[in-house]
Amino acid sequence: MELNAIKKLMEKFSKRKEQLYKQKEEGKKVFGMFCAYVPIELILASNAIPVGLCGGKNDTIPIAEEDLPRNLCPLIKSSYGFKKAKSCPYFEAADVIIGETTCDGKKKMFELLGRMVKMHVMFLPCMKTEKAKELWVEEVKKLKELIEKETKNTITEEKLKEAVEKVNKMRKLFYRLYELRANVPTPIRGLDTLKLFQFAYLLDIDDTIEILEELIEELEERVKRGEGYSGKRILITGCPMVAGNSKIVEIIEEVGGVVVGEESCTGTRFFENLVEEPTIEGIAERYLKIPCACMYNNDERIENIKRLVKELKVDGVVYYTLQYCHTFNIEGARVEEELKKEGIPIIRIETDYSESDREQLKTRLEAFIEMI
Amino acid sequence: MELNAIKKLMEKFSKRKEQLYKQKEEGKKVFGMFCAYVPIELILASNAIPVGLCGGKNDTIPIAEEDLPRNLCPLIKSSYGFKKAKSCPYFEAADVIIGETTCDGKKKMFELLGRMVKMHVMFLPCMKTEKAKELWVEEVKKLKELIEKETKNTITEEKLKEAVEKVNKMRKLFYRLYELRANVPTPIRGLDTLKLFQFAYLLDIDDTIEILEELIEELEERVKRGEGYSGKRILITGCPMVAGNSKIVEIIEEVGGVVVGEESCTGTRFFENLVEEPTIEGIAERYLKIPCACMYNNDERIENIKRLVKELKVDGVVYYTLQYCHTFNIEGARVEEELKKEGIPIIRIETDYSESDREQLKTRLEAFIEMI
Ligand code: SF4
Ligand code: SF4
Ligand code: SF4
Ligand code: SF4
Repeated sequence: MELNAIKKLMEKFSKRKEQLYKQKEEGKKVFGMFCAYVPIELILASNAIPVGLCGGKNDTIPIAEEDLPRNLCPLIKSSYGFKKAKSCPYFEAADVIIGETTCDGKKKMFELLGRMVKMHVMFLPCMKTEKAKELWVEEVKKLKELIEKETKNTITEEKLKEAVEKVNKMRKLFYRLYELRANVPTPIRGLDTLKLFQFAYLLDIDDTIEILEELIEELEERVKRGEGYSGKRILITGCPMVAGNSKIVEIIEEVGGVVVGEESCTGTRFFENLVEEPTIEGIAERYLKIPCACMYNNDERIENIKRLVKELKVDGVVYYTLQYCHTFNIEGARVEEELKKEGIPIIRIETDYSESDREQLKTRLEAFIEMI
Repeated sequence: MELNAIKKLMEKFSKRKEQLYKQKEEGKKVFGMFCAYVPIELILASNAIPVGLCGGKNDTIPIAEEDLPRNLCPLIKSSYGFKKAKSCPYFEAADVIIGETTCDGKKKMFELLGRMVKMHVMFLPCMKTEKAKELWVEEVKKLKELIEKETKNTITEEKLKEAVEKVNKMRKLFYRLYELRANVPTPIRGLDTLKLFQFAYLLDIDDTIEILEELIEELEERVKRGEGYSGKRILITGCPMVAGNSKIVEIIEEVGGVVVGEESCTGTRFFENLVEEPTIEGIAERYLKIPCACMYNNDERIENIKRLVKELKVDGVVYYTLQYCHTFNIEGARVEEELKKEGIPIIRIETDYSESDREQLKTRLEAFIEMI
């Protein structure tokens, strides 16, 4: 049941490095980033390229641990390790890195990373008071100025409007994808969707849009024919599962589940909410809506999870925490409580990038999926 | 060589609970807090009482781990556990808890704590841009309003001025204490000073001032007579060592060291920098100067450590991290590098509140102290 669009995704991805370096040669600047809060519209509007650099591999963790504590989130260590080892072509392509103050680990890792690369760190507020909103608008403005300086391109109103429209278009396609996944049986596996999200942080946005359009056509056909996957329907919620790290989805789909949604930055937090106004303020507003656990009193996330459970006809929720990620880990207590109140089955998993717990996770997830 | 002032400190502390409940009966409100960034001047100006509620004991960790992750800073777990177990009389006395967004763990723990107590969380920025400073002034203003509402006392200019003067007076006494400790031999042990800092978060400020004044007189006498402690001179830097947690200082002073300074919230971060203007803005400014590792690019801390090493004639620095405290842990890499550049010996210790690593720490610290 392979999808042509997914085949195309893999092809595009396999050629992405070459394409990116060619774009660089043609004079385009590359901006690296580690978070869904970084407004890619500004990068695109300056004719530059955004690439997500979050590391999802275990290989680069040992070299990172020369500088960083062992008991730190694997995503942070993996990312840092890629730069230290110079082993990620995307990282090496980046002219400037845009960081943010979302979590303690990244915030402080950026101080060390800043010695190896050109860094700009955005101050993301963790509360949404009026002053905090103003501050965030200012941070978005500062980012615009930085990008203009680096690219020597002025971000005109026109350019910004185009970029906003393009990213919104991509977002709408993801919304449509989610609608299609709500069908029973669901027309696409979680592992394929995850790849889509993972590579969307790396591919040229025009390619992503093209792939999404084809995918949606194919899935609509499948839905018409009543084709799809009919395991226990799982919503994953929690930390991002970036390229290189698909362990949990793999396991879930091995033991009789099918992932129908991801409340994640490789999922809904990547595309939900459109930019309403193509202005700095409009962009700032959209991004501040992202319900990441870094926010104090992040109730929107709990509401979102409940809504997704309904919309996607979910049988059970897998709460996914990367080891030592305090914000998602602690927020898990409230999410668990709230879901239990509504009788929604939930299992909380805390893991890293190693393979050592795969069997144990398999046993736990198998039991969970059988039970629900 | 017992000091009378320290004897008095212990006496005052032993009677503090009784005194506090009496003050409560007389109508005074009690505000609990977990951080050196909370401006106690505002609490004092409203005729209320600030108490530091940071937990330093292992006992309350198991009950906390029913809700919180195991791999979280012991200070956070211990604090939360005290409330859950209702076993801390200071916590029970508190009418309102003032939290802050300094670290991921506390920020998210406060969400859970807020279900058991009345909470107000201040948004502390982790960068010092102009907008961030404005935001912080606003947060201090909001705290003032909250305190006025809770106490039903208006914080007049006059009252604020008095409170600022009183706290500044205490700070100046601590400065003087540090000057005296700079003597060789140093006139006071680290363990006694640590108790002073620990209890200063709990005692009535008038009592703290009285004790400090007596202590300084006694120490001046000692210095005149050339009396004191002459082990290897150690500066501790890092996470707070709150009441109940004196493990590292105990060990250092058992194995031939003497702690002559603490770059810590039970140390310099508690008293350095006076409030220059007795206004909301002046208070906000002073507190934002605290060089906690929660700040992005916290270079002031590194400068402070170097300065303290010189002023206090330090032989070696013990970098103290509470397990899973990402900010202090990661910042340790830069501190170590900078001190090594200047040839200042440093050892990095990561520990929790258990006793299980005491022997191992003793071996390491003994070796360090012999070596320097
Ligand atoms: S989980 Fe939060 S910090 Fe991580 S990428 Fe998403 S928005 Fe950013
Ligand atoms: S998973 Fe958590 S700890 Fe790791 S980078 Fe994201 S927010 Fe930070
Ligand atoms: S170390 Fe930082 S977060 Fe902890 S009490 Fe001190 S200022 Fe607050
Ligand atoms: S020691 Fe670190 S982790 Fe613990 S409360 Fe203080 S800043 Fe937070």
